[in-house]
Amino acid sequence: MRLPNHIGIIPDGNRRWAESKGLSKEKGYGPGINPGLTLFKLCQQAKIKEITYYGFTVDNTKRPTEQRIAYTDACIKAVEILSKENADLLVLGNSDSPMFPKELLPFTARRTFGEGGIKVNFLVNYGWEWDLNSLKMAEPTQRNIINCVKSAEVSRVDLIIRWGGRRRLSGFLPVQSIYADFYVVDDYWPDFKPEHFFQALQWYKEQDITLGG
Amino acid sequence: MRLPNHIGIIPDGNRRWAESKGLSKEKGYGPGINPGLTLFKLCQQAKIKEITYYGFTVDNTKRPTEQRIAYTDACIKAVEILSKENADLLVLGNSDSPMFPKELLPFTARRTFGEGGIKVNFLVNYGWEWDLNSLKMAEPTQRNIINCVKSAEVSRVDLIIRWGGRRRLSGFLPVQSIYADFYVVDDYWPDFKPEHFFQALQWYKEQDITLGG
Repeated sequence: MRLPNHIGIIPDGNRRWAESKGLSKEKGYGPGINPGLTLFKLCQQAKIKEITYYGFTVDNTKRPTEQRIAYTDACIKAVEILSKENADLLVLGNSDSPMFPKELLPFTARRTFGEGGIKVNFLVNYGWEWDLNSLKMAEPTQRNIINCVKSAEVSRVDLIIRWGGRRRLSGFLPVQSIYADFYVVDDYWPDFKPEHFFQALQWYKEQDITLGG
Repeated sequence: MRLPNHIGIIPDGNRRWAESKGLSKEKGYGPGINPGLTLFKLCQQAKIKEITYYGFTVDNTKRPTEQRIAYTDACIKAVEILSKENADLLVLGNSDSPMFPKELLPFTARRTFGEGGIKVNFLVNYGWEWDLNSLKMAEPTQRNIINCVKSAEVSRVDLIIRWGGRRRLSGFLPVQSIYADFYVVDDYWPDFKPEHFFQALQWYKEQDITLGG
């Protein structure tokens, strides 16, 4: 079976899930932590080489404070849980900003946890403008654009899976996502089921790879 | 009805259409010219402010010569046809390359044809790396990234419609497409029907706009 090397994960729909249960919006983030671990284990079993979670973005920090606290807390917990697995873990985002949780500063250089193996990137206070801005500092002779962005540690994405039904990238790694195939799950992220992942892999297998050629 | 200001058009599936008719692949491009004009008129009637056609890319120029000649010819004809309409027309791409057709050089600065009105961008020998490369020449103090790319004349895209069933951007205006909603039509581009456009607008109307917030 043809597998993606690198899967991007956009776990959207937490707030709509909370509302659908009659809960206030910020209650939707905590129930997104376990699905993240389940998906990690499925990727590991499937021998996926790299995964990137869209934690939260600079854009997201404009939301009400109680939501910001709740999604930041969920990201901290998720990274702590992943650091108990076998993974090469990196948290990536604008860590110069007060919106970046200090608990995650020790993860901003890639480190091997357990036996390592799968590369896991977790985007925290990530911004597409922050990412591309470093191109302005690049040497014009440096040809490869991926090497010049702040997310240079993150490789080209083959498959993006987005939960919550929306069909857009919302700033997710614009350079690495240029050729990515984009699979949308209508269910909200807290309603994650392993079938979503298997269906996405099955769909991906049927796509051709042309890299724009 | 909530309308997109700017629609990106990815007219894919020409070669698969030709093969499905028992024709050689390069025969699929000519039948894509009329759909382009029909779609232009529908956008005009719907009072869309700006449209961008994905003509051909730097990546595409690696294809066999007879295909390259055929799609280049189709792009030249499409631009000539559009220049007989009321439109503010711009052809955008790497015009320093021999792959850029000299017939389209007069269109590389925006000009008003007829009474003007709708902005039409036609990407010809466009490359995402070519586009982003100019960021390397930008002043680090220049905050707005869209203003620093080669396609700075092209505004943010609200809705991308891709024909031919594939769910990926394939390098289409990465900066302007950051927040775009992405609608996929399974039919091949030469099988364009006005319903595709109306269905895409209907779908778009139901999406929320958050710009990542």
